[in-house]
Amino acid sequence: MILARYLLFFAQKVMTNSELAAKVFQRIETLSQISEDTDRLTRTFCSLAMRRASNLVGCWMSETGMTVSEDAIGNVVGRYPGSSDHSKTFILGSHLDTLRGAGKFDGSLGILIALACVEHLHSHKIRLPFDLEVIGSADGDGARYETTCLGSRALAGTFNELDLKKVDARGVSMAEAIRAFGSDPDNIKKAQRDPQQLLGYAEVHIEQGPVLEKKVQPIGIVTAIAGRTRVRVRFTGQAGHVGTTPMPLRRDALVAASQFILAVEATTRHYPGLVATVSQLEVLPGGANAIPGEVVLNLDVRHQLDGARGVACARMQETAAEVAQKRGIAVEWNIVHDAQSVPCSRELSDALAKATRTHLVEATELTSGDGHDVAAMGDITPAAMLFIRCAGGITHHPDESVLIGDVEIAIAVMNDFLKILANQRNPLPAKKRA
Amino acid sequence: MILARYLLFFAQKVMTNSELAAKVFQRIETLSQISEDTDRLTRTFCSLAMRRASNLVGCWMSETGMTVSEDAIGNVVGRYPGSSDHSKTFILGSHLDTLRGAGKFDGSLGILIALACVEHLHSHKIRLPFDLEVIGSADGDGARYETTCLGSRALAGTFNELDLKKVDARGVSMAEAIRAFGSDPDNIKKAQRDPQQLLGYAEVHIEQGPVLEKKVQPIGIVTAIAGRTRVRVRFTGQAGHVGTTPMPLRRDALVAASQFILAVEATTRHYPGLVATVSQLEVLPGGANAIPGEVVLNLDVRHQLDGARGVACARMQETAAEVAQKRGIAVEWNIVHDAQSVPCSRELSDALAKATRTHLVEATELTSGDGHDVAAMGDITPAAMLFIRCAGGITHHPDESVLIGDVEIAIAVMNDFLKILANQRNPLPAKKRA
Repeated sequence: MILARYLLFFAQKVMTNSELAAKVFQRIETLSQISEDTDRLTRTFCSLAMRRASNLVGCWMSETGMTVSEDAIGNVVGRYPGSSDHSKTFILGSHLDTLRGAGKFDGSLGILIALACVEHLHSHKIRLPFDLEVIGSADGDGARYETTCLGSRALAGTFNELDLKKVDARGVSMAEAIRAFGSDPDNIKKAQRDPQQLLGYAEVHIEQGPVLEKKVQPIGIVTAIAGRTRVRVRFTGQAGHVGTTPMPLRRDALVAASQFILAVEATTRHYPGLVATVSQLEVLPGGANAIPGEVVLNLDVRHQLDGARGVACARMQETAAEVAQKRGIAVEWNIVHDAQSVPCSRELSDALAKATRTHLVEATELTSGDGHDVAAMGDITPAAMLFIRCAGGITHHPDESVLIGDVEIAIAVMNDFLKILANQRNPLPAKKRA
Repeated sequence: MILARYLLFFAQKVMTNSELAAKVFQRIETLSQISEDTDRLTRTFCSLAMRRASNLVGCWMSETGMTVSEDAIGNVVGRYPGSSDHSKTFILGSHLDTLRGAGKFDGSLGILIALACVEHLHSHKIRLPFDLEVIGSADGDGARYETTCLGSRALAGTFNELDLKKVDARGVSMAEAIRAFGSDPDNIKKAQRDPQQLLGYAEVHIEQGPVLEKKVQPIGIVTAIAGRTRVRVRFTGQAGHVGTTPMPLRRDALVAASQFILAVEATTRHYPGLVATVSQLEVLPGGANAIPGEVVLNLDVRHQLDGARGVACARMQETAAEVAQKRGIAVEWNIVHDAQSVPCSRELSDALAKATRTHLVEATELTSGDGHDVAAMGDITPAAMLFIRCAGGITHHPDESVLIGDVEIAIAVMNDFLKILANQRNPLPAKKRA
């Protein structure tokens, strides 16, 4: 019967995965033209560019046999009904917004691959034993309000109502922005999904790192979203004149900070998988003739295991205190952000791995060092994530680049992943609807 | 005869050194009120504030029996004629301009102590066997045009005519500024002094460093203005995402820069007296989630001996290359400023030491780590410098502070210094003029 169905597909000239990948690439180009800025890709939460992008994605959803809606936060939701009227729902999604000066694959690629999967089902007239939704989330990158995953947090019921009072760089509050977008800031709770009605969530995304490229793997399965600690560290020594203060009389905050930065790097060697970075550093007073009296730096520490991250952070804090104490320098250690690791669903990841192994020799696993909608969705339903390799690990930049062949593999794997889920949920072959 | 003269002084109720020091402090307060900014002391080259300050200092010079003039660059010059009509000239001076948000002693103190010395001579009706000039130089701190000692370089004939085309932050060229001040930018050369007519130059200045305070010495004799190399060092690694780039795959420019900064500090331990500072450091791209791809820093190296400075700089450059090479990072090394050490006149410094030892147990010597008018004047005449201790080495700040007792000692020493010079130049006691 399966053979017969596949023969039927070819007779109907439905699109191959290669053709679907080409269509994804065309749509990526189209979406990348929808920007707030004329010279670069910028599409922030509830902007006019998001309105146009959301409308366009809605059209594509309709063309693919989906019913389209937008929820109270502005997520665009396409629903491809399952074979039963009382089906639960499986969600595929990613974010439709971007950072300022973004790359074109970040977020969009996951939505468009999800649409390719639905197109595959629709053109083959396959109905799954569950409803399939594709969600383009309203905010995954948080460029406008410096927030985290507003779209999926509204779905998960973890949206913070206080955020509605935040204002953007032009003084527009989030509530006003949502209202101007045509959504409903007074009823964000209505976007919340009932966990009982959900089967799970899966997101395809570019890796945004160099691991898969180094391993020569087109795709990889994410085991967890790493936990993260962000610390603002301030070293306060004493300013002075660079020419007139002998070395032994100095309390140079930048030399202390440098010693700390090297110690942070050394600490990572004791914890496999730990990444720790000083990404921002400000020197005060900053004059050419002034010994640095104060340094404020931003330390970012991430690991798949919260325990390892906690111990590593404690060690770094001790080192900062030791370095400072020896140099007569004061140190302040302020944790400004602390997010626990979110493990992905083992069951869904296994299904992704099984689907992967039908196309590749091995299924590579890796941790996601950056946050994704999947972390928010994991609060209410099993969630999994597939990474696609990107060139040089470059992201958040116009040079962001993905191979079309890798996208083809990802589409094939996601198609098979949905079939595996269908077979798990329903031992009978997926039914066709009329 | 000397005893008789001193008795005469007391009979005339001339001012004691203590009273002269109090007068210097009063005048410091008065000058500190003459500012371009309402909330802080800022008096830049050829500003309206400089016009008022120059006029006031000119009045004080007149009151002290001096003939007053201004030269083509705007230096205010008071002349206290010597005992002969064909005398050569000895100059006492410092700069009348300030940085933005300056301390009140920087520059002004040297001019006012010089005036106190002339007041001492004038009230005692002493004529020296040489003409004595007090010069308030028009620019010693260079805040307006980022220049070095325009006033004394005009006197020394080393003024760079190309500087006249420089523009300030408001677009006013230096030539326009000098003309607006009432001086003559077309004839800066006329300010140049004939070395044959000069006996020497001496400057009193606050130390602007903590050495004298640490040594518990009120004053110190400067042996040399340290030579200086300023280097712009650029480390270029590769940016990446802080969460998604494993440590072994990174080329973090800030970690490389940190290693370099510690190596700079370590290098100074091999060269006594060497000071080396990274005073400015910029991290690019500078995002919270971005691994530093590029660091640009400003390195400042100073030493009394040019040879030691050269060898130390070469060693630091090698270290930068080694650090960068091991981390797969590129390094650029651009020397943006290189000034040779200027030794002070041994003969004049010995006279200062002799004068000091009549008031203090020892005469402390130290290097000046910062540039001063004395370095420019040293090009045409023997030049010497006396430092006065300042609290905590703090300078270029409203907290700049000097003890009145130290100023009293400095006045006494400068009075004796002039007497020693007078006796050296003329074995007969200095003559009184009618």
